Amino acid sequence: MPTNSLPSDLEIARAAQLEPIEDIAAAAGIDAARLEHYGRHVAKVDLAAVDDLADRPDARYVVVTALTPTPLGEGKTTTAVGLAQGLAQLGKRSMLALRQPSMGPTFGVKGGAAGAGYSQVVPMETLNLHLTGDFHAITAAHDLLSAMIDNHLHHGNELGINPWSISWRRVVDINDRALRNVIVGLGAKLDGVPRQTGFDITAASEVGVILALATDLADLRARLGRIVVGYTFEGRPVTAEDLKAAGAMAVIMREAIKPNLMQTIEHTPVLIHAGPFGNIATGNSSVIADRVGIKASDYLLTEAGFGADMGAERFFNVKCRVSGLRPDAAVLVTTVRALKTHSGRHKVVAGKPLPPEMLQDNPEDVRAGAANLTKHIEIVRSFGVAPVVAINVFPTDHPDELETVREIAEAAGARVAMSTHVADGGQGAVDLARVLVEACEDETDFAFTYADDDSLEEKLRKVATQVYGAEGIELSAQARKDLAHFEELGFGQLPVVIAKTHLSISHDPTLRGAPTGWRLPVREVRLAAGAGYVYAICGEMRTMPGLGKHPAAERIDLDEDGQIVGLF
Amino acid sequence: MPTNSLPSDLEIARAAQLEPIEDIAAAAGIDAARLEHYGRHVAKVDLAAVDDLADRPDARYVVVTALTPTPLGEGKTTTAVGLAQGLAQLGKRSMLALRQPSMGPTFGVKGGAAGAGYSQVVPMETLNLHLTGDFHAITAAHDLLSAMIDNHLHHGNELGINPWSISWRRVVDINDRALRNVIVGLGAKLDGVPRQTGFDITAASEVGVILALATDLADLRARLGRIVVGYTFEGRPVTAEDLKAAGAMAVIMREAIKPNLMQTIEHTPVLIHAGPFGNIATGNSSVIADRVGIKASDYLLTEAGFGADMGAERFFNVKCRVSGLRPDAAVLVTTVRALKTHSGRHKVVAGKPLPPEMLQDNPEDVRAGAANLTKHIEIVRSFGVAPVVAINVFPTDHPDELETVREIAEAAGARVAMSTHVADGGQGAVDLARVLVEACEDETDFAFTYADDDSLEEKLRKVATQVYGAEGIELSAQARKDLAHFEELGFGQLPVVIAKTHLSISHDPTLRGAPTGWRLPVREVRLAAGAGYVYAICGEMRTMPGLGKHPAAERIDLDEDGQIVGLF
Repeated sequence: MPTNSLPSDLEIARAAQLEPIEDIAAAAGIDAARLEHYGRHVAKVDLAAVDDLADRPDARYVVVTALTPTPLGEGKTTTAVGLAQGLAQLGKRSMLALRQPSMGPTFGVKGGAAGAGYSQVVPMETLNLHLTGDFHAITAAHDLLSAMIDNHLHHGNELGINPWSISWRRVVDINDRALRNVIVGLGAKLDGVPRQTGFDITAASEVGVILALATDLADLRARLGRIVVGYTFEGRPVTAEDLKAAGAMAVIMREAIKPNLMQTIEHTPVLIHAGPFGNIATGNSSVIADRVGIKASDYLLTEAGFGADMGAERFFNVKCRVSGLRPDAAVLVTTVRALKTHSGRHKVVAGKPLPPEMLQDNPEDVRAGAANLTKHIEIVRSFGVAPVVAINVFPTDHPDELETVREIAEAAGARVAMSTHVADGGQGAVDLARVLVEACEDETDFAFTYADDDSLEEKLRKVATQVYGAEGIELSAQARKDLAHFEELGFGQLPVVIAKTHLSISHDPTLRGAPTGWRLPVREVRLAAGAGYVYAICGEMRTMPGLGKHPAAERIDLDEDGQIVGLF
Repeated sequence: MPTNSLPSDLEIARAAQLEPIEDIAAAAGIDAARLEHYGRHVAKVDLAAVDDLADRPDARYVVVTALTPTPLGEGKTTTAVGLAQGLAQLGKRSMLALRQPSMGPTFGVKGGAAGAGYSQVVPMETLNLHLTGDFHAITAAHDLLSAMIDNHLHHGNELGINPWSISWRRVVDINDRALRNVIVGLGAKLDGVPRQTGFDITAASEVGVILALATDLADLRARLGRIVVGYTFEGRPVTAEDLKAAGAMAVIMREAIKPNLMQTIEHTPVLIHAGPFGNIATGNSSVIADRVGIKASDYLLTEAGFGADMGAERFFNVKCRVSGLRPDAAVLVTTVRALKTHSGRHKVVAGKPLPPEMLQDNPEDVRAGAANLTKHIEIVRSFGVAPVVAINVFPTDHPDELETVREIAEAAGARVAMSTHVADGGQGAVDLARVLVEACEDETDFAFTYADDDSLEEKLRKVATQVYGAEGIELSAQARKDLAHFEELGFGQLPVVIAKTHLSISHDPTLRGAPTGWRLPVREVRLAAGAGYVYAICGEMRTMPGLGKHPAAERIDLDEDGQIVGLF
């Protein structure tokens, strides 16, 4: 059943018969009074729904992660969608929590982030464009703070902010390379104080991470107030609260805090909420969506960005620390092509088809990449959580290659199942769903990698060594200074995020498999005091993508019937 | 019944019992299937509603305008809301079309733009914040084009765009003075081509005017394509179509094209749609909202920005030209305080209370300002439309002052009525409603100020002399060059917008009453080819407001119950 004979994702999505969103909610036990409709097939869910359902037992809580992906991605979202549908096929009430895709990149190179084939979230146009405006709210709240900073400088700088210390930039949800580095405040005296700054894409905004980590509206308000935008000339941190901006920012975010209910092609409920970057930020969907989902289902699948070393590590060490929720299992999405790539014998380039030799039947290549999968299984286990390896079957995979993946997973002691959800929808994920149900009955013995009391440096070291398998960390002079500074300011209790490439378990994208004998070099460390973590920069982190010479936007249009063409 | 003993606008709005928006729609004959809900009390109306109602007779179509306002505003929106409610009190099916307020200024000095007292649009928080995201869509579509321009330069500038000719800036819906003049494209080679540009506030975006003037989605798409962003080195105009950006922009605007249905405090239906600036742009709500409203009511009131010389002139000469719709009457909102100001004996400053001597009983001051009202009555008549003077009664007005206004209006041959809608809601506007109903039965003899075939210069001259009462126009050398250029490029058939102060019928804000013996100086002329007009710059036009030393944002917050405080 080769997927290349399937109708296109768009054709499948358009042919889908959507159910009224209130019916989807009702099936999940969410009262219609808790819904705020946004168009026909999306509703925001009021957080009071959690209280309504307080007497219900918590769902089994499953994080969906992956091995180290190729630049093409390994179908993690797609597998999560398929698996949720597969659980439904088994008669389980499943629900899915996904990040909201960023609109900007839709007009760059990226297609939609809504799954694929018969495992999609619909309507895909809504999901990939404005949705309910949460990203716009993040942009507006973020940029209001930016305006208030520059306005404060303009009106005499009473707080004594050192303009060269300001780390709060502006954001826009558009791939706009020309905005990476700008000088603002040119013109006459009334046009502000000139200084150099820049724009990031909205997904890189700390406001977006705050949305993802806030436990309720009051917590969101408090976190916004704690944002540190820079320092005074005396070195004291200047917060959004000091600038009296946090209240207005919270007002702008008042609706955005409610998760967005959608459905899969098979009518499984999906909560879409927040979409912080997977490199410098947490790369996980929201705590609030998980809190709703855990009460409104029996199995809640929540997706973490990139591999288990990236999104899942932050899911365990940062998101679970904030939410107090504990996972019952972790699904590790795996593909034949990723393992072949980890053999080091092939090169996969984003936006290009796989090299033809990779499509040949070659279980030996698969075996040569085994170390990566084995390492990710170990990473999941290091948190005391049961790993379930999901083999996302592609039509070009060969049976003995797929069997080889199964053998590798079993040899590492993990549960494993193949899944053909792209071609077959939920029915193709029933085996995987069965294995997951079984894994959720295991005893878990959840453990963080580090304690709150560990020093920031110790936290970084523990993640590098115990999660990544590095031999240690190398702090630059700047990083050492940053860490001392943040400890001194009282931020030493915060968890850490390590901003590194997602294409290797190490900091070096060319190191395949499970690299050993390396140390993690930390160039600098930054503070996200509102979101509540410090993040270590280990490599080039791009926070504002550019457009290619012929971006997708050139092909996107409306047809004569007003239907969107070229978006996917 | 002094309004200063009324509860606050916020208290009144919060106490209002809103009806389900589907009931509001149903009463207007709009089928529930044509609604897309956005939260509990707002719905977008699909344009197919116009076809559903094709067999219904067109409503009486009434533009609501004003005399030359003081910097405090004369309650035009409030009167429009009250009058719509007053018509309902008479048993007429009335509807209101208003511009969407811009969110940015809400955090500056401005309170909400939702009416006042018992004549408000609700819920006011929704109206003044994101509403359904149309402004965010305008921002995104506008800035995608900006990114594609800079990206085109970066990737080799195949079209040969002269970077110094680029007039397309970026927009953001925030008062951010530091963005007025910026240099973008700094950094390394991959970070774009350095050049100076700037940001305007979203309400100044041509995309927003296109939304306001488009007759349907196909027309919106075509207008976006016609946007001229600059010129090639050879002087050829470069359009959004040339940059292949217009299709993607239309996709971003696909939902924004549907007007937003809300209600007044007395459940009169209100269509909120588009909000282009009243200075450089048309300052009128959308053609599409009017097209819906004209089929879904018996009396459609549509508001035009500032005085009859500003928004109403553009309503008649630009909006009616595009829409093909013709008004049956014009309501001229008038206040005692405005006429006193036009006496030249008082000075009113924005954000400050009226000087105490203005509150004394002084019909002579009112009479001394009569020329302004008389002139606005003449302006309305110059279009062949019957004027109805609406005296917006303030609690501080004295009876003989109010009578004096009535005498002035009657002496000029206009119908006139007083209205106490702020204190009394629709009941306070019943007299005004009766007079309007009567006026709508007059024969109209609608006429534009100029013909399509008149040269651009001739169009400017006719508006200046026949509408404003100037003796002629003075073109700067630059303006002369601009006009010749646009004629040569084939834009000579377009209508014109004159960008001037709204505080005088002339270009000089210090000239009160009905200035005579002056000529309109035109500094330069710009092209809005997508919106479909050229606009003449006659004075300083601010397109990006700043924040004050203590902007409203500092006082805006959420209370313990998550309710907004400080917004109004």
